[in-house]
Parts: sequence; C-alpha cells; structure tokens
Amino acid sequence: MKTLIKNVCAVMPDGTTPVTNIMIDNNRIAGIGDVPEDFRPGKVIDGTDHLAIPGFVNAHTHTSMTLLRSYADDMALMDWLNNEVWPAEAKMTSDDIYWGAMLAMLEMVRTGTTTFADMYGPWMERVAEAAMDAGLRGVLSRGIIGVAPDGEKKLEENAELYRNFHGAADGRITVMFGPHAPYTCPPDFLKKVAAKAQELGAEIHIHMHETLDEINGSLKEYGRRPFDWVAETGIFEGKGTLAAHCVHLDDNDIEIIKKYGIRVAHNPGSNMKLASGVAPVPRLLAEGVCVALGTDGASSNNNLDMLEEVNLAAMLHKVHGLDPVAIPAFKALQMGTEFGGQAVGIPDIGRLAKGCKADITLLDMNSAAWCPRNNPVSLLVYSANSGSVDTVICDGKVLMEKHALTTLDEERILFEAQRCADRLTK
Amino acid sequence: MKTLIKNVCAVMPDGTTPVTNIMIDNNRIAGIGDVPEDFRPGKVIDGTDHLAIPGFVNAHTHTSMTLLRSYADDMALMDWLNNEVWPAEAKMTSDDIYWGAMLAMLEMVRTGTTTFADMYGPWMERVAEAAMDAGLRGVLSRGIIGVAPDGEKKLEENAELYRNFHGAADGRITVMFGPHAPYTCPPDFLKKVAAKAQELGAEIHIHMHETLDEINGSLKEYGRRPFDWVAETGIFEGKGTLAAHCVHLDDNDIEIIKKYGIRVAHNPGSNMKLASGVAPVPRLLAEGVCVALGTDGASSNNNLDMLEEVNLAAMLHKVHGLDPVAIPAFKALQMGTEFGGQAVGIPDIGRLAKGCKADITLLDMNSAAWCPRNNPVSLLVYSANSGSVDTVICDGKVLMEKHALTTLDEERILFEAQRCADRLTK
Repeated sequence: MKTLIKNVCAVMPDGTTPVTNIMIDNNRIAGIGDVPEDFRPGKVIDGTDHLAIPGFVNAHTHTSMTLLRSYADDMALMDWLNNEVWPAEAKMTSDDIYWGAMLAMLEMVRTGTTTFADMYGPWMERVAEAAMDAGLRGVLSRGIIGVAPDGEKKLEENAELYRNFHGAADGRITVMFGPHAPYTCPPDFLKKVAAKAQELGAEIHIHMHETLDEINGSLKEYGRRPFDWVAETGIFEGKGTLAAHCVHLDDNDIEIIKKYGIRVAHNPGSNMKLASGVAPVPRLLAEGVCVALGTDGASSNNNLDMLEEVNLAAMLHKVHGLDPVAIPAFKALQMGTEFGGQAVGIPDIGRLAKGCKADITLLDMNSAAWCPRNNPVSLLVYSANSGSVDTVICDGKVLMEKHALTTLDEERILFEAQRCADRLTK
Repeated sequence: MKTLIKNVCAVMPDGTTPVTNIMIDNNRIAGIGDVPEDFRPGKVIDGTDHLAIPGFVNAHTHTSMTLLRSYADDMALMDWLNNEVWPAEAKMTSDDIYWGAMLAMLEMVRTGTTTFADMYGPWMERVAEAAMDAGLRGVLSRGIIGVAPDGEKKLEENAELYRNFHGAADGRITVMFGPHAPYTCPPDFLKKVAAKAQELGAEIHIHMHETLDEINGSLKEYGRRPFDWVAETGIFEGKGTLAAHCVHLDDNDIEIIKKYGIRVAHNPGSNMKLASGVAPVPRLLAEGVCVALGTDGASSNNNLDMLEEVNLAAMLHKVHGLDPVAIPAFKALQMGTEFGGQAVGIPDIGRLAKGCKADITLLDMNSAAWCPRNNPVSLLVYSANSGSVDTVICDGKVLMEKHALTTLDEERILFEAQRCADRLTK
C-alpha cells in the first residue's frame, strides 16, 4: 500500500521546513519531494496548511498509571507514594493494566506520539496487546523491584515478556529489561538482571538519579553515588541503556554516561511537578550525550502530551541557566523525535527521511496560535498545543485522520478507564 | 436577557466543584445552584460533562505584538529587541495595531480569556475598537517611553485614551496609564505621569524589575534599585498600580510592594523563554501580595494562552524552590482568574459567585486528558490544554459556543493578520 501526503510543510532532519510531498510505501518513507510518475498512491492525504513532523517518541512513561491521573496531586513525594499511589496500584488487575494502557494509547494518538517506552507491571503483555490494538510502537519493560519478596519472579516475567514479544507486530513491539532504580535494586540483584539481559541480548531501561534523596540514600548505604556503583554491576555493559531522569549529576556521573553511551530520557514536566530538580541537559547535549524526552507517568505529569515536554525542555533550561539560547526550538523538537528514536533503540524513526519508518504526525496550522506563519518550528514549540494534531500515521498506517480515530473506540476507552479508576481509588 | 448554564461542574470560589446550575441575568451572575421557578431563561446551555471556570484574566500583555509571533526567537534579549522587534514595530500602522489586536482577541476567545490588560501603542483606540468588536473586557494603557523625543506626546495620548474610553462599552473598556519601565522613564518624567494619572483618577500599569540588567542599570545610574526610587516619584500613590514581572526583588522591594498595595502580574512563560529569572511568587503570596498572571506579548511567550500560564505558575515554582506543594493547582487557577480581577482593578470578575460579572469559560471534559475525573481542578491545571475550551461568555454575552464564534470572523482575521505581518517583517 502506497500513501502520499501532498503539499505539506515538512520539518526536515536539518530543521528546514519546505512545502513538499511525502511518499510512503508500506511502513517506510519512500521519498520526500517531487512525486515520480510511477508512484501511484492508494491513498492521498492533502497536507495543505499542515505541518508534518516525525511522530513524537515518549522515551519514558508508565502508561497504565493514567488511571491514577489527578487522583492525588500537590503532595510531598513519599506521602504521595506511600499513602496514595502504592495502595491504589496494589489493587490493579490485568483488566486495569489493559484499560489504563488503552487510555494512554488514546491520549498518545490524539497528541501525536507514535512510540513510547513503558516501564510498569505486572501484566505487561496487556500493554503489548493495547499497543498492538492501537497500532502504536511500544518499547516495553517489566518494572523490576529487586528488594520485593518476588523480585526474582519479576525478573523472570521480564525475560518471558522479551521471549514472547520482542520484535512482535512487525517489529512495532520491542522489549527491554526494567530494573526499576538503584534504590530498589541492590548490586547483587542488578548483576542478575545484567546477566539475564545480556544472555537474551536485551537493552536496559532504568530510573537514575531522579531526586537528591536518592543520591543521599546511596551515599549513606554504599558511600558512593548510584551511577558509580551501578556501573560496576555490568548493567551498562550490554546492548544499551536508557536511563530516565538523570537530574542530579556530577562530573563523574557524566563521564560514566558518556563512557557507556547511556541515553538519557529527560522528563521536564515530571521533574517540575514533583520538584525533583533541573537536569543539566544543555551540558549533556553539548558533550554529545543522546538526551530524549519523556512524560513520565500520568500521575506525576499529569498527561502524556509530548508537545508540552518539548516546550518545557526549551523553556525550563533557558530560565534555569539564565540563557535565552540554551535549548533552541529545533533542538527541543529533535529531543522529542530523532533523539527519542535513538534513545529507545530504534534509530530509523524520529526523522522525516527516505528509508525511515513512516511514523508521521500532521498538525493543522489554521488557527491563531499559528499566525503569522513566520517560523513553523518556532510556532510548533513555543505557541501551538497538541490540539492542532489532526492526523497520525504509525508504521505507515493511518491511526487518526482529521481528528477521526481509525483503530480506537474513544467512547468505550473513556468509559472503561473511568470504571477501572473508580474501583482503584474509591 | 437571562441565560442558564445547566448541569455544569463549576469551580466555586472556595475550590469545590459541585455539579450545579449557573444563572445569568443580563451581564451578571444571578445565582448558582437550584433554579427558581421564576427564573425563565431566554437561552439554555447544556453544561453536562463541562467544567465552568471564571474567564481567565490576562493581567499583562501587548496584544498587537501577535503580529511578531515566531518572527525572531532563540536570541539574546537586546539583539532581539534592537535588530528584530523594534525595527518591525517602527513600521506598524493603525491598521496593523487593529489586526494584531484582532488576532489576539481571536486567540483569547478560543483559549477562554475574557479580560486582558494591554500596554502598547500608538493607536490604542484601535485596540479598544478590537476589544469592543470581539466583546472582550480590555484594560488598556498607552505604553509611554519617557526617554523618547515624543515622550510628552505619548503621555498626552494616554490621557486622551483615558478621557475617550475609560468606562466605555458598558464598562468593558477601562484605561490605565502605561509608563513603560523605570529604565525608559526617568524620575522627573514619572512624576509627570503620576500627576496626570492622579488628576484623572487613573491607575498605573508598569514593567518593574524584569531582568538583572535592569536592576544593575539602575544601581549604576541612580545608586538605587528601581522600586526604591520609583516609589519617591509618587507613581505608586494614586488609585492603584499593576506592576508586571517583578522577577528580581529584595526585602526592601517587597516592603514597597506591600506598603503601596501594588498588584503583581507574574509572567512565567515570558520569564522562562527570555531567561529573565524566576519571581519569588510563593513568598509574595504568603505575604499577602496580589499576584496575577499574564502572558506578556506573543513575541516573547509566544501565545496568549492563559491556561498554559496557570500550569507554568504551578510547575515552575515547585521545581525552583524544590517544594512540591509550592503553588497548588487551585491557587494557580486563582492567580489566573480571581487575583487577575483584583490586579486589573475589576474585583467583580474572576469568580463564579452571585453578583459577579458573567465572565465564564466552559471546558469540554470528554477527552483522555480529563479521564479519570478524580479532581477537576487538578485535571484543568496539570493535564488539560486550552483545546478543551469550547464556550466563552463575557459580560453575559456568548462569544463562543461549542467552538463556534459569535463575534469574530476567524478566516478574515487570520488573513488580515498574515497580510500585516508580511509587510512588517519582509
């Protein structure tokens, strides 16, 4: 099946925004530019007055936590976790995981995200099912709490998830190992995770250095900062590592990130709302580290809107460093797209370029926020919101066209998610 | 004319969110709750699954700067002003001021703002015309640059604006005096502005302490911080003062703000994007200062979306103070509504309460960002975006209903604004 997006303003990998045509053949971008006579599309999408960008890559989230959205906000972190989040999570069933994930899929399609890296569990196979039902690209890991009585079981569930789903749905589903964090996974346990992941050839998705408490706890327990001792467990020595947050970093931490080619998922919305701190993103970018963007879970963000994260990434580091050019608009957009693809281990997404996967989001520019149309990338990052997203294509398949969903039953998802949430929180 | 909004989830002045009915009689809220038998509405709006909030009050903007939106971003401040903004502004005609303002009106109605405090010029009467055409509430001031060769003329234009428009359109238009800032208005000039404003009984709208450069420039020129010497010009001693930004404040500055009952317009989006710094908002609120929210001009924000400012106000101060409860959701919403009304000198707007002006915004909660519906205020502030705004009422008149505009011709405004912008910037 061939699809043609005609006459669209396309954000190219170099940041230019020509009005052009995007040709799609099956699940890949077959070309961008003049349409050859022998390209006969089965479907034509009129891109007039639309901006085409690569589908957003949400490099760190916990999809089923959408069920806890707005359940408990404006609280101190440990109070929030101990008294609200964890008791509610303890009641979650396989059905909750599915409908929470479906609510996330709905939100991601509506806001132009085509790939997400998820860490949650149990029943991550239900998240795989939701991603496959929705037509999105999911990078799944089973969150493994090593200090839990059933830590070994969780590790085995992650291995099982890998064996059953890595590469599923024409490669739309991939699987990483998800050791939750250094403060929940002691050194000996991380060694076991590293060994198992390397045996299977799997990558790692882990929370690192999110809060000052985490650093101080590690200094107290191990006399060392987490990056320092985690590096010795072998966890970074496998196929690759996606480290979420990385807020509090010293020079040695950054050396470790560079030495092992660790990719960082920066979560500005979550870091702001939970008051975790401001990650040294401009420095990481300047030193060549791959920094992607994530929303974190909906209960700490409180949405999965990647355009908001792109905006916050551009804005937060300017004011934090008192530098108005700290992260320019196009760099922020790259963090939400191209760098995201690299971060989640799928380098052929996140760019509008021949040969890349056809993951494409179109935004309608017919509104005040896009007027005057001086600089489309600037308008996207600083002025527009995700309400402008009207068409989303993932792996060459149209998931939404002019706001109409093709794979998801919105009314049913909202109903079922509310039903699940009511049981968890009331 | 009586209007009834039925069965709506209303954010009350105490932060509760009952499902109730809002009765409007002419331009005021006649009651909230059970509908008496003798209340016979000429119009009924079904509020099912909608959240009703007071219309947002944008306490500091420069409406016609919408024409420069996305024209020059990611630049250092003085480079941006000297080489991009000021040369473009120098070309502005009366026609540009009108269509730039109309683009702003369109954006404000679409995003649920019903009142705006504007400082710009010349031709502020065209902004008054735009606000009257749109049906919005405008608090207008002519930006007065005292160091300009025609500073006296600008001051007289502001007086003229006051005489011609203060209280116009059934009170929807009010006028303040707009001495631009201490660094553009020397002490003797501010004394003249104070005298003229007090003669007419007008309030003051001024930029104060936006950047560190401004403070340092004042220390160099006067040996004192701006608040300190401006207080001696009498400018704060009239009917009232709205001071925009107030980013860099020391103890003495805050004492002056409290002594004169100065109301602050905090602009988190602009302060972040221009890297101005972070205002001490939690402290100001704790000390009883009225802190409202503004977008600043669209060329430094880059939109007029007040829900974004409410969100940023809640988020920025949490991460800046490493305090997850610094500004809770409802407080942030109050800053964008109730405190805004106080700040712009119209205390009977910004609350859904009997006797207040009927300035009301309805948001459609039928979408993923609003599910599950645990806490409507939290959903509004942290999860939703202004795409949910579907109905806007100002002064009892419906300006938008289910996304359909009643006063504005969107297609024409976008066309004319693009035409004006092209001439200014090309």
